[in-house]
Amino acid sequence: MPYVNIQVTREGVTREQKAQVIAGVSDVLHRVLGKDPAITYVVIEEVEPDNWGVGGLPLPEFRRRQAAP
Amino acid sequence: MPYVNIQVTREGVTREQKAQVIAGVSDVLHRVLGKDPAITYVVIEEVEPDNWGVGGLPLPEFRRRQAAP
Amino acid sequence: MPYVNIQVTREGVTREQKAQVIAGVSDVLHRVLGKDPAITYVVIEEVEPDNWGVGGLPLPEFRRRQAAP
Amino acid sequence: MPYVNIQVTREGVTREQKAQVIAGVSDVLHRVLGKDPAITYVVIEEVEPDNWGVGGLPLPEFRRRQAAP
Amino acid sequence: MPYVNIQVTREGVTREQKAQVIAGVSDVLHRVLGKDPAITYVVIEEVEPDNWGVGGLPLPEFRRRQAAP
Amino acid sequence: MPYVNIQVTREGVTREQKAQVIAGVSDVLHRVLGKDPAITYVVIEEVEPDNWGVGGLPLPEFRRRQAAP
Repeated sequence: MPYVNIQVTREGVTREQKAQVIAGVSDVLHRVLGKDPAITYVVIEEVEPDNWGVGGLPLPEFRRRQAAP
Repeated sequence: MPYVNIQVTREGVTREQKAQVIAGVSDVLHRVLGKDPAITYVVIEEVEPDNWGVGGLPLPEFRRRQAAP
Repeated sequence: MPYVNIQVTREGVTREQKAQVIAGVSDVLHRVLGKDPAITYVVIEEVEPDNWGVGGLPLPEFRRRQAAP
Repeated sequence: MPYVNIQVTREGVTREQKAQVIAGVSDVLHRVLGKDPAITYVVIEEVEPDNWGVGGLPLPEFRRRQAAP
Repeated sequence: MPYVNIQVTREGVTREQKAQVIAGVSDVLHRVLGKDPAITYVVIEEVEPDNWGVGGLPLPEFRRRQAAP
Repeated sequence: MPYVNIQVTREGVTREQKAQVIAGVSDVLHRVLGKDPAITYVVIEEVEPDNWGVGGLPLPEFRRRQAAP
């Protein structure tokens, strides 16, 4: 009875991509651990870039600095 | 100091229902574990059906197939 | 397809109490939201008191100060 | 490779405040545990007050009662 | 910068299986969403069966009843 | 009423370091968001290195390759 929580930034993930992530992750747990996909829950959480920090900075600012020469 | 996180699909849960869930879950932890409701946090997260996977499918598609003859 | 995560301090919760928490919380979601218990997952996480902070202190130290005259 | 999840009520947290929380928390993990901020993720989740329970009540109702004489 | 949390019951998952789950899930996010595995964190949490509820019962009891004639 | 969950690898974090992380993070939320530490919960979860993936690999293997010439 696996439960999987996936957090990604909210940046235009399409319905089709979500379906592919759900199918792919369920398949991994099936192949590797023998978990029946029928009992695997996959929850995708989309996080605003301003709410995601890395390098001590909100992601938009982090990326700006990475891109700067 | 319990912390409870409840994830359900975003499908019209009313304010009154949320209040009942919060009251009910706090009461369970009080009765069974003796936890004072004053220190129990209950956080309800509503998840878009497209972001919830089961059976290797997004929930709307999963339900369509369940309903099919 | 609710998923519930309950975090409490690891302080001697018995197997029987866990069963009662699982039954009680599943029942609340059934009564209030109409969720079939068959599809409700309840995961209990027991956290070492040293790993739980409140009032800016680990729980054991927080309690010591609360108890002091 | 720390991962930090911060849940607060959605009550007008500004972009600047989020940046300060991300910077501050990353700094704590750097100073205390020696974790390079470059590998620390901080995710802020803003929760609707109606979805946050304490004292067995949704937060707005809890506050109304606290404020009552 | 995806973060993935996978909860499964603690029932003898091997080190090799964990490595395969990590590789597989990171690959799904790479193929579908273009996320560089270098920035994808995958955290596996193993939950004691007594702490996992489904059908209103702890998992061991749930399974016993499923298996009964 | 903030709730903070911190996941780090289980690699000898001391009781004193946990106390400093709890104090430091509670202080950040107090200074930046005006949250009273009395109502801030901080939960530290220590994750086995084999259960933490990055770069598509369990952390011990990831580090071995980083260290290799």
